[in-house]
Amino acid sequence: MRIAVAKEIDEGETRVALVPDAVAKLVAAGHQVSIEPDAGADADFADQTYVDVGATVDGDALAGADLVASVRPLNSGAIRALAEGMATISFLPPAQSLDLVAELRDRSVSAFALELVPRISRAQSMDALSSQALVSGYRAAIVASGLLRRFFPLSMTAAGTVQPAEVVVLGAGVAGLQAIATCRRLGSVVKAYDVRAAAAEEIQSMGAKAIELDLDTLEGAGGYAREMTEDRAQRQRDLLAPHIAAADVLITTAAVPGRQAPLLVTADMVEQMKPGSVVVDLAAETGGNVEGSKPGSIVSIGDAQVWGGANVAGQMPGPASRLLAQNIVNLIALMTGEDAALAPDFDDEIVVGACVTHGGEVRHGPTRELLEGADSEEGNDNG
Amino acid sequence: MRIAVAKEIDEGETRVALVPDAVAKLVAAGHQVSIEPDAGADADFADQTYVDVGATVDGDALAGADLVASVRPLNSGAIRALAEGMATISFLPPAQSLDLVAELRDRSVSAFALELVPRISRAQSMDALSSQALVSGYRAAIVASGLLRRFFPLSMTAAGTVQPAEVVVLGAGVAGLQAIATCRRLGSVVKAYDVRAAAAEEIQSMGAKAIELDLDTLEGAGGYAREMTEDRAQRQRDLLAPHIAAADVLITTAAVPGRQAPLLVTADMVEQMKPGSVVVDLAAETGGNVEGSKPGSIVSIGDAQVWGGANVAGQMPGPASRLLAQNIVNLIALMTGEDAALAPDFDDEIVVGACVTHGGEVRHGPTRELLEGADSEEGNDNG
Repeated sequence: MRIAVAKEIDEGETRVALVPDAVAKLVAAGHQVSIEPDAGADADFADQTYVDVGATVDGDALAGADLVASVRPLNSGAIRALAEGMATISFLPPAQSLDLVAELRDRSVSAFALELVPRISRAQSMDALSSQALVSGYRAAIVASGLLRRFFPLSMTAAGTVQPAEVVVLGAGVAGLQAIATCRRLGSVVKAYDVRAAAAEEIQSMGAKAIELDLDTLEGAGGYAREMTEDRAQRQRDLLAPHIAAADVLITTAAVPGRQAPLLVTADMVEQMKPGSVVVDLAAETGGNVEGSKPGSIVSIGDAQVWGGANVAGQMPGPASRLLAQNIVNLIALMTGEDAALAPDFDDEIVVGACVTHGGEVRHGPTRELLEGADSEEGNDNG
Repeated sequence: MRIAVAKEIDEGETRVALVPDAVAKLVAAGHQVSIEPDAGADADFADQTYVDVGATVDGDALAGADLVASVRPLNSGAIRALAEGMATISFLPPAQSLDLVAELRDRSVSAFALELVPRISRAQSMDALSSQALVSGYRAAIVASGLLRRFFPLSMTAAGTVQPAEVVVLGAGVAGLQAIATCRRLGSVVKAYDVRAAAAEEIQSMGAKAIELDLDTLEGAGGYAREMTEDRAQRQRDLLAPHIAAADVLITTAAVPGRQAPLLVTADMVEQMKPGSVVVDLAAETGGNVEGSKPGSIVSIGDAQVWGGANVAGQMPGPASRLLAQNIVNLIALMTGEDAALAPDFDDEIVVGACVTHGGEVRHGPTRELLEGADSEEGNDNG
């Protein structure tokens, strides 16, 4: 098939959907790949590095494509330029993109959303939420070590011993575990908490101490946490407060897919931290785990600096794009039939799970409901 | 004795000569300690934390003191406020502070320079150059990891393996070894070079590879490197060039005490580095190991970002001050006689080594020569 790589247009998006290594694999599999000019430039992949592996550079790459790969969803203008019936793969948070979903539907585009890839073993290699969370979790620890005006590790010197920094990590999914691992590498003492019971063992396997609170655990679908009642949230904050007050660094990574991030830490709790403390809130873009955090900014709360993440994976665009591209290559391979033609199998739970629109219909149940009302006609409900 | 802690006045100096823990030790040893208001504020030590350990806060602390401790040398105004015959301990680079040295001499101040403490085993706990180099070496690695838009460690993920970053460290003194240790902790692959033969083993003990060049080694006094000829420097640059071109991160830490830092890396060599590469030059303030580096700034050379250090230890003022204060406490203890009185023993090589002025004379030979000419009267020449 003809695959096009879009140049990202969203402000601050540095990543690219396919890197040269990934393009080389697609070319070897019999596909033709075109990139829009400068598609990889912000991630330090020059156009020539794509040409070197067999891609063409084409300002009209999208128009002639069977499949367009991008990091962020295409905008209205780009969607209108697409041929009817072609396919797109990108992040596409459906509930926040209803207008675009309607346009994709009306244009009969087969739109696949990376965040809807089911969290099953077979789809692990296509799980872009996880691959990007790995990058942002590492980055969170590096940012914290840069902001903290002290050592992470214990240092024994001729002029005495310097105590290691104490780090608390909230949320022990992929990002949280990677933050823990990186803080541990740097020699800090790490404690972590997650509402899921299964997390304690993973936290310990990374060399951190699992904070145990006298509360019920909350296991959701696909290994994610589920939402909690406000009463439980309040008790959780009360029990976490002393751990946070004693920490030099707090890193929060708690997310509930498709919903606002849970408020785990109030401004009052941050104000109890020591002078010079550092807070990194990876969930700042979806409402924040920390009250008062601002995406893309550092704010002072009490004597602490609070760093709010904004497209954190995009701060390391090279490796983030490399992992994302491999996710996309694996997803394309799943949807490729004979003669390297696009042939998504709608009996495959990964294909049907990731599909937002197809054949002029919204195929993702919850989105269809939002867009067309509860009594809309039945499709392949995969919500 | 009455010990005063100066509030630093130099722009950007965040450290303080004595931290509360150190003051507590001095008070326990029978000394009276006064601090100028806000002396520790930039290092997150509030005045009250000094009061809590028995110090007084006094805007005129310097005037009544037997000994004044500061990080940077006192300025003219402060020197004029000192009682005749009292003592100072601070960093005091004599060759760059000739006017101040003359004032200290004329005021009959006993001025001790931390950078002149001899590098002998007994003085290790008073070696402030080493304690501050430890901080800046750690910081150099953290800064590099923050600037690099890739992972330091190898990462094995469901979407493939991410290769570790390659780091080259030039200069393997205290700062260089600490940078190596920190980069290794973070999982990067590290190669290092030092002109001293003894360094290779230390480099390897930190888990890095020692770069071996077909050149003579240069061992100087006190474990420091000595200067090299321009011819050798050129050959060294030629031989290092391919190592640097292959690196993602270059950290330079080469210093020759009291002299301009050696130029190890030309702009041409930096231009051979890959897009997105990072250079950290810890020697930027003394002329730079890297051509074009600017202290306190990030400049672009080719496709690399070059970070020039400026008071790098001061970026971590809490631990830097803590270590420095312990150095100063140890030096004060060495110069304390009965009844906790100031009694420097000028038969002690540490005392005589660190002394710049005493009893109305310049006691540091090379400085006396610069200030008073080669045929000045003989003192305790300790140069």
